[in-house]
Amino acid sequence: MAEAMTIDKLQQLITRGPFNQWLNFTILKIDEAGIELKATWREEWVVNPDRRYTHGGILAAIVDVAADYAIAAQLGRPVPTIDIRVDYHKAAMPGDLTAKAKIVRNGSQYSTAEAYVYDKEGALVASGRGTYFTAPPK
Amino acid sequence: MAEAMTIDKLQQLITRGPFNQWLNFTILKIDEAGIELKATWREEWVVNPDRRYTHGGILAAIVDVAADYAIAAQLGRPVPTIDIRVDYHKAAMPGDLTAKAKIVRNGSQYSTAEAYVYDKEGALVASGRGTYFTAPPK
Amino acid sequence: MAEAMTIDKLQQLITRGPFNQWLNFTILKIDEAGIELKATWREEWVVNPDRRYTHGGILAAIVDVAADYAIAAQLGRPVPTIDIRVDYHKAAMPGDLTAKAKIVRNGSQYSTAEAYVYDKEGALVASGRGTYFTAPPK
Amino acid sequence: MAEAMTIDKLQQLITRGPFNQWLNFTILKIDEAGIELKATWREEWVVNPDRRYTHGGILAAIVDVAADYAIAAQLGRPVPTIDIRVDYHKAAMPGDLTAKAKIVRNGSQYSTAEAYVYDKEGALVASGRGTYFTAPPK
Repeated sequence: MAEAMTIDKLQQLITRGPFNQWLNFTILKIDEAGIELKATWREEWVVNPDRRYTHGGILAAIVDVAADYAIAAQLGRPVPTIDIRVDYHKAAMPGDLTAKAKIVRNGSQYSTAEAYVYDKEGALVASGRGTYFTAPPK
Repeated sequence: MAEAMTIDKLQQLITRGPFNQWLNFTILKIDEAGIELKATWREEWVVNPDRRYTHGGILAAIVDVAADYAIAAQLGRPVPTIDIRVDYHKAAMPGDLTAKAKIVRNGSQYSTAEAYVYDKEGALVASGRGTYFTAPPK
Repeated sequence: MAEAMTIDKLQQLITRGPFNQWLNFTILKIDEAGIELKATWREEWVVNPDRRYTHGGILAAIVDVAADYAIAAQLGRPVPTIDIRVDYHKAAMPGDLTAKAKIVRNGSQYSTAEAYVYDKEGALVASGRGTYFTAPPK
Repeated sequence: MAEAMTIDKLQQLITRGPFNQWLNFTILKIDEAGIELKATWREEWVVNPDRRYTHGGILAAIVDVAADYAIAAQLGRPVPTIDIRVDYHKAAMPGDLTAKAKIVRNGSQYSTAEAYVYDKEGALVASGRGTYFTAPPK
């Protein structure tokens, strides 16, 4: 495990990437249980202009990033995603989304992490898990 | 099955949503084997500013949309995603991405569809499948 | 929700099926957090005669059944599985396996549930989640 | 790639494991498109004694084994499963099941393969894909 990751360091890492900037992530919390982050609403997230709910691709991206950064909080760096599964639970209406993520199992070659995404009322809108490539970089 | 879906009609449907507009989808083909579409590169897709490859959330969104619109081409409307799985095969470098999608199994309550995403050189960068809610709207 | 499900009733339901009998499930616990069950080791579970660990198909079956019966504990009946994802964390050596399962999200048409499988030393060997068809039977 | 795998060699590999013996697999075909195998019906496969269809855990095991042996046909050995997703399409009534499997993407560290399972009438009953650990053994 890398030295203790601080919120500031994790925020710097997540802010480096253009798409993560576009999703406008704020790291809210890091503790032994995992991490919590927020993605700030944008009008471009809408999938259906009449019903106005959020595109599943946005929710998938948030699940992936949150789970990945639960690993980054331990490993000191984000890691390549091998695969993800996302379950959609409820239409996510306009508003910031928060995600809680944690490692399910830490491995030397690949690891599993999961994330839950909540709307601004605290309702669960999506959740999922991914396999991440955690072998040391060559 | 709805009356034959044309490329123009499917293009109109996909262009309605703000996030689909942002991903800038063009429907390239519809036939009995499924559909083919293109998403136009944007600088915001980058996950890593040094290595410049595309964010997995973008690829997940393309898998989801392509699989969904393979169903829409049959059903006449896009349908809610119940869940998706996405496998990442290769870093997707800057450039337009194309996806080929088809229905795996058509059901009256829920259906399975899959999609393959290719970079501008034709290399497979991601693929996946989703379960979609295809019960008639109430 | 059906009237309170007891361990005895859930045990009767799970014991009806030949393959569940073969996996020799014992319901250990039902509470508001979910359920816990045990599957009794059989020599036929082995995938590799030299290294003697348990076949992934057995672990997938246990994940599926445990998640399904977390729903059954609420709904009063097991439900059709729409799809599952299973992650393998560690070789499961010979010995009984226990699983803890809970509902992730309860829906009127389909629901998500998850399960964690542990070996006799309490180590996590597999986990996963499924989508289940929870619409009322016609 | 290993030297050309024959049906006989693949049959020997698959027959080594007790659970694969119990599922009674016969390798039917190996070609550049992938492999085809058969699992022989057993009464213990039934999940529901009234309706008599096959347990989802059996179908998951067949998807996993078929996809794994599509890789084994190339690599010369079966490989550890990292994770699988299985979609259930139709109740599989008593009778032998056949599966067609192929590699989706071959990687030096991990690979993706998929499988389709058919009942004795040729109807698709389940399909899925898995990620397999294909790094060389140490």
